[in-house]
Amino acid sequence: MTSNTTADTQGSPQTALERGRAIVAQLNPGLEEVLSQRYDEQFPDFAETLVEFAYGRLYAREGLDLKTRQIATVAALTALGGQTGPQLRVNLEHALAAGANRRELLEVILQMSVYGGMPAAINGMNVAMQLFEEQDALAS
Amino acid sequence: MTSNTTADTQGSPQTALERGRAIVAQLNPGLEEVLSQRYDEQFPDFAETLVEFAYGRLYAREGLDLKTRQIATVAALTALGGQTGPQLRVNLEHALAAGANRRELLEVILQMSVYGGMPAAINGMNVAMQLFEEQDALAS
Amino acid sequence: MTSNTTADTQGSPQTALERGRAIVAQLNPGLEEVLSQRYDEQFPDFAETLVEFAYGRLYAREGLDLKTRQIATVAALTALGGQTGPQLRVNLEHALAAGANRRELLEVILQMSVYGGMPAAINGMNVAMQLFEEQDALAS
Amino acid sequence: MTSNTTADTQGSPQTALERGRAIVAQLNPGLEEVLSQRYDEQFPDFAETLVEFAYGRLYAREGLDLKTRQIATVAALTALGGQTGPQLRVNLEHALAAGANRRELLEVILQMSVYGGMPAAINGMNVAMQLFEEQDALAS
Amino acid sequence: MTSNTTADTQGSPQTALERGRAIVAQLNPGLEEVLSQRYDEQFPDFAETLVEFAYGRLYAREGLDLKTRQIATVAALTALGGQTGPQLRVNLEHALAAGANRRELLEVILQMSVYGGMPAAINGMNVAMQLFEEQDALAS
Amino acid sequence: MTSNTTADTQGSPQTALERGRAIVAQLNPGLEEVLSQRYDEQFPDFAETLVEFAYGRLYAREGLDLKTRQIATVAALTALGGQTGPQLRVNLEHALAAGANRRELLEVILQMSVYGGMPAAINGMNVAMQLFEEQDALAS
Repeated sequence: MTSNTTADTQGSPQTALERGRAIVAQLNPGLEEVLSQRYDEQFPDFAETLVEFAYGRLYAREGLDLKTRQIATVAALTALGGQTGPQLRVNLEHALAAGANRRELLEVILQMSVYGGMPAAINGMNVAMQLFEEQDALAS
Repeated sequence: MTSNTTADTQGSPQTALERGRAIVAQLNPGLEEVLSQRYDEQFPDFAETLVEFAYGRLYAREGLDLKTRQIATVAALTALGGQTGPQLRVNLEHALAAGANRRELLEVILQMSVYGGMPAAINGMNVAMQLFEEQDALAS
Repeated sequence: MTSNTTADTQGSPQTALERGRAIVAQLNPGLEEVLSQRYDEQFPDFAETLVEFAYGRLYAREGLDLKTRQIATVAALTALGGQTGPQLRVNLEHALAAGANRRELLEVILQMSVYGGMPAAINGMNVAMQLFEEQDALAS
Repeated sequence: MTSNTTADTQGSPQTALERGRAIVAQLNPGLEEVLSQRYDEQFPDFAETLVEFAYGRLYAREGLDLKTRQIATVAALTALGGQTGPQLRVNLEHALAAGANRRELLEVILQMSVYGGMPAAINGMNVAMQLFEEQDALAS
Repeated sequence: MTSNTTADTQGSPQTALERGRAIVAQLNPGLEEVLSQRYDEQFPDFAETLVEFAYGRLYAREGLDLKTRQIATVAALTALGGQTGPQLRVNLEHALAAGANRRELLEVILQMSVYGGMPAAINGMNVAMQLFEEQDALAS
Repeated sequence: MTSNTTADTQGSPQTALERGRAIVAQLNPGLEEVLSQRYDEQFPDFAETLVEFAYGRLYAREGLDLKTRQIATVAALTALGGQTGPQLRVNLEHALAAGANRRELLEVILQMSVYGGMPAAINGMNVAMQLFEEQDALAS
């Protein structure tokens, strides 16, 4: 049990919140502002808590590259089932921003049929297909 | 999006980690040390992250008393099913420390049969009964 | 194993169905009729079964006040994830009817991020925010 | 919304509790007593509630034979995952009592790999294999 | 560990894929083509994989009749919760094609309230009621 | 909808079962035999089905490297909760065989606290720590 600035993150003498904001700037600039505007009146500090905990305390850790972390998140959200559709969509965007390509993301979603069952995989497949179609429509 | 010390916690000008440690001192003194000794070699900062996030960022919030927060946690862990048995046990102890009595905890577990199904409720009932038996054996 | 009118509910010498109807009258008058009209043709007795089991056999029990019971239900439905959105909405209304305030309900939903994960909490947050907005729009 | 003795169960003018006890007598005589002895001190009325609700209000309904109902229960408990192992075991015994054979039960468990994922199916397979081995050891 | 054509399926000396296609032809002719057109560009071989695995390797097995298999699937999809709504709908249609009647399907869905909780059962009830209403509207 | 040997796997003109066996030989030689001996009497063809479906139809696909696939599996099994402990353990071994190191696996498990909740992550952490301790004890 040590200070907020530990051996695990040496060379990055920031608070967890600062480390989280640095990751979010890379994956989805403006995310904290969007979350703040949506949630802060009802849930004070929620946006900050999410950035500090999820990105500052977990994604910012050493030992696993950001792209693989995002692929793992896509895997988990798919396996957990269709209830996490909106979060799966956002994390597919984050995974692309972290360097994953579409093929990799489609593959990991399909693979989840072994672990979360076919319905969970199909729900994830539908989320990815809709996102990519919308991205293509915007780009054309 | 504001600083780490927000309106929600005014009058407690601490960091989230400090606020979390204050709650843990009330519910389960020594918990962070136990977690550190068990997990920190493999998972650096995990104990600190848990205290900061769960207790400093959530349980420390205003708007809901600690006892009701712990009863809600017992409800959730029961509904989520038997996989969370060890966490249910610890949180039953925390709920007692927060002022809940055994009857209240048994009632909330039983009620979960409506939401998580009968098997989840029965698994929770078994966890509570074993804990209370062990507590009584120690006390006699 | 005793009769339908047990020591647990002495002083309330009613059947479980009668006890359930008394609770429902307090939380959501007309609920059984609404459920009957919607479901009874396809699912004979379903409305009665729900009132008898959930409210007569569980919520009507002694040992935990109705407000805390409803907060526990909100906790469980949030932790179980977005699939339970419609039921979460109804139970938020029931919780308000049982004396909980909005702040308490928002807090317990947010707290579930520790147990059901961030996506489950965010889905619950969205359900609550939409309900409260609609209530405010109706009241203005 | 009618009386406790409805068209759905005409010819069986019993209360839900009586109907439940008749089913339990067929599937697992003594179950209510076992549950009462184990749970009633801590959870008054729980055994009665389970018999009334699960067996009297659901299994006792017309429209689906008891054997198929038990096979459906085995399917659900398998798909829900290993947390329901103890309940799966009891319901495998009930399914055999309702006329299902081992092959049918093994098949339905295996089939759940499509819906609950391979790990859930394998956990169910292990529960069934252990039960059948113990039954054979007792019978030899 | 034997060849693809085993004792379990003797008299049907087909590959798993061929066996799966024979079942699908019975339950839902054209399903593989529909899945291929929807998914094969993004997920090559997915339709074939689903037919081979789910229908050729599991539903095609001996030891349990197709109607009961489909009822078991309806049970599992209901218990797993609302996230599987689209798959529940398709499998209700398959169950009718396999010889189940509506009453049987409504009953098994309702029964799941014991195992997956009331919210999961209610979500399943709504899916079935909507399907049957649409079927009746088409038939009138 | 094409033959069993598709464009997706060109250059590997094998059946799905043969492709699956090639992957298993790399990750865990002897796995199919172990599964056959344990399950084939009760569940004919199960071992073959698992190898064909999970490894031949999914892990053998192009588009995502085997190491990342195994990390994704570890993520999913952790997020799905403690019920999948035995499968998590086997897949941690497979992930090491596919080139992942311990640090990467510990990190992905910890990260799942955001998606599957803290209890699921802690259960996964315990599985990994026990496996690594046993591996070290065997190696010393």
